[in-house]
Amino acid sequence: MSGSGVSRKARGSYGVQGAYVAGYGSVVGKLEGAGPLGAAFGEVWNDDLAGQTSWEEAERELWLAAIHQATKRADWDPTDPDLVLGGDLLDQLYSTNFSAREHHIPLAGLFSACASFTQAVGLASLLVAAGGPEKVLAGAASHHLAAERQFRFPVELGYQRAPTASWTATAAGVLAIGGARGPIAVRGVTLGRVVDRGSKNPMDLGTAMAPAAHDTLERHLSAFNRSLSDYDRVVTGDLGVVGSSILGELMGAPDGFEQIHDDCGRSLYHASQDTHNGGSGAGCAAAVFSGPVIQRMLAGDFRRVLLVATGALFSPTSYQQGESIPGIAHAVEFVRAWDVEKGGGV
Amino acid sequence: MSGSGVSRKARGSYGVQGAYVAGYGSVVGKLEGAGPLGAAFGEVWNDDLAGQTSWEEAERELWLAAIHQATKRADWDPTDPDLVLGGDLLDQLYSTNFSAREHHIPLAGLFSACASFTQAVGLASLLVAAGGPEKVLAGAASHHLAAERQFRFPVELGYQRAPTASWTATAAGVLAIGGARGPIAVRGVTLGRVVDRGSKNPMDLGTAMAPAAHDTLERHLSAFNRSLSDYDRVVTGDLGVVGSSILGELMGAPDGFEQIHDDCGRSLYHASQDTHNGGSGAGCAAAVFSGPVIQRMLAGDFRRVLLVATGALFSPTSYQQGESIPGIAHAVEFVRAWDVEKGGGV
Repeated sequence: MSGSGVSRKARGSYGVQGAYVAGYGSVVGKLEGAGPLGAAFGEVWNDDLAGQTSWEEAERELWLAAIHQATKRADWDPTDPDLVLGGDLLDQLYSTNFSAREHHIPLAGLFSACASFTQAVGLASLLVAAGGPEKVLAGAASHHLAAERQFRFPVELGYQRAPTASWTATAAGVLAIGGARGPIAVRGVTLGRVVDRGSKNPMDLGTAMAPAAHDTLERHLSAFNRSLSDYDRVVTGDLGVVGSSILGELMGAPDGFEQIHDDCGRSLYHASQDTHNGGSGAGCAAAVFSGPVIQRMLAGDFRRVLLVATGALFSPTSYQQGESIPGIAHAVEFVRAWDVEKGGGV
Repeated sequence: MSGSGVSRKARGSYGVQGAYVAGYGSVVGKLEGAGPLGAAFGEVWNDDLAGQTSWEEAERELWLAAIHQATKRADWDPTDPDLVLGGDLLDQLYSTNFSAREHHIPLAGLFSACASFTQAVGLASLLVAAGGPEKVLAGAASHHLAAERQFRFPVELGYQRAPTASWTATAAGVLAIGGARGPIAVRGVTLGRVVDRGSKNPMDLGTAMAPAAHDTLERHLSAFNRSLSDYDRVVTGDLGVVGSSILGELMGAPDGFEQIHDDCGRSLYHASQDTHNGGSGAGCAAAVFSGPVIQRMLAGDFRRVLLVATGALFSPTSYQQGESIPGIAHAVEFVRAWDVEKGGGV
């Protein structure tokens, strides 16, 4: 198993050789730190404003802290990375762009809402495996209070949340993707299509996104000729309680699917924390993967993981114009490199 | 000169072998159609609403029409493309995402404001040259009336524009990038860094973006060991009259630079059309390159062209918070393939 490169498996699905997770970083807010995964994040903030004067500036600091962690763990100099790939939920990618004003690394900003993390990691892995950039930081961030006032209302209004509503996480996650051999390899990427089944309720995004997760998951399995049992874990993004249940139904075997399925949003908070459907936000899947999940891969608990981050592509304008909510999901397959060497590769 | 692949020339700069422009499409609104380049666009709308009920829906139609043209010219079936890469200026990429709901092609949405087109074409070329996707549509779109009401005010208010203000173009441009040999090849890509010199005036984005254009241009020339005289044309994005003048000064030789320099924004309208600094918007560089410029390359007028699209990365929120306006520019180098065969390649 040597060399590097990219191979087309099917429309939108690509095999990857020679892209590794060289480092990882995750930062979360106070509420997320008090959740069941709290101890597994690289950094937990006590103050969600992080000493800044706005929530948007605080989100920029989430980005910078996650980049710092990932770069340090990869043993890269801060000036080493060739490229940052990533996005956030804010209009015109406020936090992604303004963090790039600080780190000075070439930037390719992207947006697929809460699927931005796998879009970033997927494209980063393809580019590194291609022999282009050697060191890429791929990530995403979101801040609860910046997102609330942009998409809904300032929380000071004290409005009531629907039982199916998700809670935008204050979180960022960044992976350092490099060509030098490491313990975890990226082995496959499937870029999602936009799927819209007509859901119009922005207080129930799990329902809006589950069909896109299903579409991408089925396409990935087919392209790589795999079945669900080939994975130790299929980790979805922000489907939460409601969307995970729908995805199980769509997969045709709810119980069997749940045996290997985790959802980042569903696992982020305790039920007692009253976030209803669970976590969401571009930083949710980013932080949960770049903290708790990758640590379990390094510990040997999971050998092959498929991460399917999901995004709801509505905007306040599209919603106010009466449009339904399109969904998208991008998948990235990770394998412990030890298993790759033993012949378990793609 | 055979094979395909990607090679790292410097941080953020990559040589490309095996990515070609297989097709191109451009669509513009009525005002743009009446400008000096009007006859060179693939489609000119008489009605900027295009039979839709909102400007955002009209922008979605710009996307779809440009994709249709590019796909048809490439002689691709509408279901052929592996991927659409691109973006727009609207919050959460409204038109990019909702057009993808129609075309069903896997999507990687991206954002670097008016530099989105070269970010899309650059990444598309790297991915195709890598042996990943075989057929990619890369583009960008903007609509004057959708942008005005989002970034500034609804035009019905009749507010006065500053003399340095640019006019967001109603325009979309799409390139079909494929691996099959064609008359125009992509040979190099430089992804930009965020550069902010402290400019705070959203009515003068040329001044805010010129330093980023300068940074990317110098980095590209250095990485590929070229000088300006190696190019028949260096085409910048939306610097307009003001920003082009500043870039000339930054290049240290205003007169010499202007001999080989065009700016998409500056060339889009007649002075009598009263757009002041010229055109801007993600669709501006996209349509001008995917119409007038590429036709001059095909006609043999230009053999080697460097396109440096420029973006201002502010948002209404960042502006209202008193932030300065960060700029970014991404560069893509195009060569007539005939010249490549004759040994003029990278």
